[in-house]
Amino acid sequence: MGVKGLFITFEGTEGSGKTTQVALLAQSLREWGRRVRVVREPGGTPIGEEIRHTLKHSHQNHAMAWETELLLMNASRAQLVREVIRPALAAGEIVLCDRFADSTIAYQGYGRGLDLEMVRRVIEVAVGDTWPDLTLLLRVPPEVSAERLRARQATLPFVRDRMEEADAAFFERVARGYEAIAAADPKRVRVIDASGSVEEVRAAIWREVAPLVALTGR
Amino acid sequence: MGVKGLFITFEGTEGSGKTTQVALLAQSLREWGRRVRVVREPGGTPIGEEIRHTLKHSHQNHAMAWETELLLMNASRAQLVREVIRPALAAGEIVLCDRFADSTIAYQGYGRGLDLEMVRRVIEVAVGDTWPDLTLLLRVPPEVSAERLRARQATLPFVRDRMEEADAAFFERVARGYEAIAAADPKRVRVIDASGSVEEVRAAIWREVAPLVALTGR
Repeated sequence: MGVKGLFITFEGTEGSGKTTQVALLAQSLREWGRRVRVVREPGGTPIGEEIRHTLKHSHQNHAMAWETELLLMNASRAQLVREVIRPALAAGEIVLCDRFADSTIAYQGYGRGLDLEMVRRVIEVAVGDTWPDLTLLLRVPPEVSAERLRARQATLPFVRDRMEEADAAFFERVARGYEAIAAADPKRVRVIDASGSVEEVRAAIWREVAPLVALTGR
Repeated sequence: MGVKGLFITFEGTEGSGKTTQVALLAQSLREWGRRVRVVREPGGTPIGEEIRHTLKHSHQNHAMAWETELLLMNASRAQLVREVIRPALAAGEIVLCDRFADSTIAYQGYGRGLDLEMVRRVIEVAVGDTWPDLTLLLRVPPEVSAERLRARQATLPFVRDRMEEADAAFFERVARGYEAIAAADPKRVRVIDASGSVEEVRAAIWREVAPLVALTGR
C-alpha cells in the first residue's frame, strides 16, 4: 500500500498537556487521511489492563516494591508492543502513545533513583527494537507540574497514586532526567515549549510531525 | 538470637516430587525446632497472587508474549523476595521455596529458547543478592516428566497451562538447562536422584540439608 507506519510518543512531567495534544494530533492526522492508533500506558491490552489494575490498587493494601513496579510496567509494555504497536505499524498506521519507555527512565530512574542501567535493561526486554520514530517532550517548568499535580490530586492515574514524593524536588529530578534523555538522542526527541497556549503548542508539534508524515505518506 | 536464616529452593522438571519433598523437609525441620516458611512461585504475596491470576488465566482470552510472561514472573518474585523472603531470613527462619529463579532459566531460557542473558538480567532485578544458600535439583528422566505431565493435564498449575510444547523434546531441553545450572554452580546446586521412593529421596535431601542447618542452628 506504500504507506509506512510511524511511532510517535509524548513525554513530559505532570500537567504538560500531553493527553490534550495527543487527541489534537490524532485529529489532525485523521483529517489528513491517515489511520491513527492512540494507546496508553500502562494498559492498552486485556493483559495490560489487568496489570494496570494491580498497579493502581496495590497501594491500598500493601507496599509494592519499586522493582516490582518496574517489572510490572514493562510487562504491560511488552504486551502492548507485541499485541498492538507492532501490528499497527506493520499495517501502516500512525501510533500515538501517551507516555512510553522514556517515562520509566525519567520517573523511576531519575525521579526515584533506581539504577539507570537496570531500568534500561528491563525496558529493552519489553521494547526490543520498537523505539519511537519521534518523541515529543513537552516541557513545562517543574513548579508548574508540582502545582498542577496537587490541584488534580483526587483524579490522578497510577503513577501519581503511588508517588509519595510528589513535590517540587521530585519533579526537578524527573525534568532533569527528561533533559538528559533529550540531550542524548536529539534526533529522536524533540523538545516542545509547552508553557504557551494549547494552539501554540499544537502548532509547534505539527511543525515537527508534518514533515515526517509527508515522508511516509501514500 | 544466634539463629541464622537459611534459604533453600527446590527445582526440577514436572513430576520430580518437589512439592511432596518440600512438605516433608518442612516437617523434619520443625521437629528439629526450627521456624520454617514455605513459599510458592508465582504468588506468595497479595500482589504476587494477583499476578499469578493474570498468568494463569491469560491463555483463555489472548496470547501472552513470552517477554510479558518473563517480566510478570519476575515482578511476582521481586515482591516475594522483599515482602516475605528477606524479612523471614532476617528473623532467622528457614525459607523453603518450591521453584525459584533457576526455574525461569531452565523453562523460559533453555526450554523456550529466550536469550539466556536477557533472562538472567531480569532475574537479577527481581532477586538482587538474595540467592539461595542451597538448591536441591530433583532429577528424574525427561520421559518420566512428560508422562506425568500428560497424566495430570487437568490439574496443572500455570507453567503447564501455557506450555504448548509439553512434549519430551521440551523437557529434554529443560532438563539439559538444569544440568547446565548445576554444573555452573556445584557448591549451591546439589543434584538429588529423585527416581527412588519418597523415603529414599527424603533421606538424600536430609543428608544435604542437615549439616547446613546444624551450622546455622542455635
